[in-house]
This record gives sequence, structure tokens and C-alpha cells, in this order.
Amino acid sequence: MPRYAMKVEYHGAPFAGWQRQADQPSVQGAIEAALARLEPGPHTIAAAGRTDAGVHGLAQVAHCDLHKDWDPFRLAGALNYHLKPQPVAILNIARVADDWHARFSATERRYLFRLLCRRAPATHDAGLVWQVGHPLDPEAMRAGAAHLVGHHDFTTFRSSICQAASPVKTMDEIAIEALDGPSGPEIRFRLRARSFLHNQVRSIVGTLERVGTGAWAPDDVKTALEARDRAACGPVCPPQGLYLAGVGYPDDPFA
Amino acid sequence: MPRYAMKVEYHGAPFAGWQRQADQPSVQGAIEAALARLEPGPHTIAAAGRTDAGVHGLAQVAHCDLHKDWDPFRLAGALNYHLKPQPVAILNIARVADDWHARFSATERRYLFRLLCRRAPATHDAGLVWQVGHPLDPEAMRAGAAHLVGHHDFTTFRSSICQAASPVKTMDEIAIEALDGPSGPEIRFRLRARSFLHNQVRSIVGTLERVGTGAWAPDDVKTALEARDRAACGPVCPPQGLYLAGVGYPDDPFA
Repeated sequence: MPRYAMKVEYHGAPFAGWQRQADQPSVQGAIEAALARLEPGPHTIAAAGRTDAGVHGLAQVAHCDLHKDWDPFRLAGALNYHLKPQPVAILNIARVADDWHARFSATERRYLFRLLCRRAPATHDAGLVWQVGHPLDPEAMRAGAAHLVGHHDFTTFRSSICQAASPVKTMDEIAIEALDGPSGPEIRFRLRARSFLHNQVRSIVGTLERVGTGAWAPDDVKTALEARDRAACGPVCPPQGLYLAGVGYPDDPFA
Repeated sequence: MPRYAMKVEYHGAPFAGWQRQADQPSVQGAIEAALARLEPGPHTIAAAGRTDAGVHGLAQVAHCDLHKDWDPFRLAGALNYHLKPQPVAILNIARVADDWHARFSATERRYLFRLLCRRAPATHDAGLVWQVGHPLDPEAMRAGAAHLVGHHDFTTFRSSICQAASPVKTMDEIAIEALDGPSGPEIRFRLRARSFLHNQVRSIVGTLERVGTGAWAPDDVKTALEARDRAACGPVCPPQGLYLAGVGYPDDPFA
């Protein structure tokens, strides 16, 4: 059976997360149902990152196996047709080798987090940002984030239900940009690593927000990391500002 | 009674337009209902531009009269509290002179139109852009738009139900920018004039899209304008890409 890699964009709000669930809508379930309209199922697709409820995808990557030798462009169009009106879009599809795996072949994940700083409630960006009513100091947040870059035990910044074998990960980058976004002043966090722990991004952003307000000193992030204790973490921030922004492979299947 | 100017942002999707209607939700109606929670009504507010159903506001300006001498910052917060969960946000409020009028004191209106060029359906930007599946030539569209800048009879680009006394208007600017937007390649149109006719922006953008595909030559826009005939217009484009982006006054009340 030919294997296809697909690049997927989605709005997280109507879904209980990426992963298929028996009784709740999921992104995986929506795509598998669309596949079943093209070829009888059941279909099981695998994704590079299983995003939580409310988390968005900008360029999630998944793979599926089909019987027919589909033209990738026509396959994407057919899937988008059957996915409507759900907010899931197949941006690109590519034929890949039979042993290529969206999750296990991936060597990098990139996340974006959008934090809107304004008092008036967001309208166009409602559900697409985490909103706080106060300004934040990006320099202080950058100083705090610097403690988290590199090879560390991230137990402090890991959900208690995380299933990863080890809490030790290498954070390659945490870039923090202050900009004038479409709805006002925004802080955008871009995190890059081979892989992430469950709730790691939201735990880090929630902690750095405390640094941005001045409630935490930048060095308190180092203390929290070294505690290797979930209780030392700042508040975990809500999911709606979080986007799986990209997945890296040794050879980009969509290039 | 003290008069207050308010800067308003809204998502157009759930509303039948700005203007209050007996049996349908409107932005004006939502704000007047919120005002009635603060001081007994009825309240009637006036706006700089009465946007159609589905059209968004980034910085609409309206005014209201209240009995109490409100602190503008607290008034904005109270209105936002009562407007929730409707996607209407009061961005700013300022005390103005009793004879200041959001509509009649305005000397400039600015509109933005977002046109997304990609085949896969929009997810995060659904309802916030007009989407076409083909690329467009911004240079050709700029050449076509140049014919519309200046003092002209815009009968061709005016809704048949337009109530303006005269079809003659001065278009101060039509800027066309091709950019890599959050959901892919976008064309953004920015139009600026003292005032606009009903459906004028959507008639112009719909016509320029035809130029962008090559179906119309840029000079066909001149021919259409000079026809002074509604039938000579290109297709009127849908409302969801349109934003009232700003209103100009001789003295900015929010400065």
C-alpha cells in the first residue's frame, strides 16, 4: 500500500485534541472519516505530535496508507472536500517510502505560542491567543527562558500524566518576540526541540509570563528547573494560544 | 448629557450588520443593550460607517450620550463586561464635545480587504478573508486600481440600493500589497476616502480580482468606470474579507 505524508492545518477549538476518541470529535477522527469516504476503512493515521484539546495546528504532519495510487494533489483536494465544514485543511500531500513514519522519522518539532496583552476582549483572535490584561517585559522573559535552553531534566515543566520514558530533553531554541499583532501588542514564543514532554510548552510559557510581570525574577526559572519538581512550576497557561507550527525531517517530504 | 466617542472592534459573522434591526442581532443593538445595563435606556448610538452583514470592524467609531460623568477607562471596561460573550470589544473611549458626531465629524474612512489565495480551505482565518484558489497578479491589479483613484462618478461601483445623494466621490488611495499572510499568500487592499458609497469597496475589489486573474485588462476598469453603469461592474465580492479599519477626524478624540 502506498504511504502518503500530509501537512495538516486545524483550529483546535471544536476538537478534544488530535487523538481519536470514542465519544468526542478529534482531528485524527475527522481525517480518518474523510479517508473512509475515499477508500473503505478502517484507517489509522499517525501524527508527529498529538496536540491537546484546544491546541491548533499550523503544519502538523501525519501519514496514511491507501490502496490506490493517488495523485497527491487530487488526494488533498478530495480530503478537503470531505473535511468541510470542519476547520481542518490538508495543505500538502507527498508520497513517501513505506518505512517513513510521521512520528518516528521526525527529528524536530516547532511550536508557536501567541500571548495577547490588552484589556479589551479579543474578537477576531478569540480562541487563537492567550490574553492577559497587563504588559509584559520581553527582556526579562528572554533572560528567564535562557535557563531552559539546552539539555536538561524538565520534570518541573512536565504534566504529571506525561508518558515519556525520560524527562530529559534538549531544548534547541526559545525565541521571544514582542510585536504589534493584528489585535494589539503580542508576545510570540517560538520553541524548537527534537521532542517535547506533555504540557511542556504551556508549562514554560505560563512560567515565563510570571517573569514578564515581574512576579518571578529570571533566575527563579533556573531554581524551578533545578528543583525537578512539578510543584515548582509556574501556572500552566491555557491551550488556545498554542500552535504546532512545524515538524522537521532529515529529508523534507514536501520539498 | 456628556458625550463619549468609542472605538469599536467586532467580528461581523454573527451580526446582520452594524445597524440596529428589530428581529436580528446587530453590533449597534449589542452596544445599546450593554449601555442599558449601565444607565436606563433607550440608547441610540451613531457610527462613522454602517457596515453590512458579515463585515468586520477593526476601529469603527461611534458616540453615545450618558447621564453620568463616567471615567472613560471604567466605562470601556463596564461595556466590555456586558458585551461578553459577543465578539464586540470597546478598544477606547474618550469624552468629546456635545456637538461632536461620529459620522458627521468624520473626514476620512479607511477600509482593509483581505483576499487569501490558496486552494485548501482556511481554518484559523475562516470568515475573516475572501478566499480564491488561484494566484493573482498584484501589478495588474495596481494598474487597474490607478484608474479609480481621484474624483470620479462611481455609479458603476455602487449598490443599486445606495442612498447617497451623489455617486461622485474622491478616492484618495487604493494600496495593494501582496504578502505572506498567516494562512498563506494574501492580497491586502487598503482604501481611503472621505466617504464611500454602499458596496463600493466590495464592487472595486471584486472587479480588481478579475484583473488579477487576467480575465480583465487593467484598462477595462477605466472603461467600466466611464460607463457609469452598474451593469459594467465586475462581480461584487463577499463581505467576510472586509474590515472598517479606521476613521479620521480633524482632531483625533483618542489621541
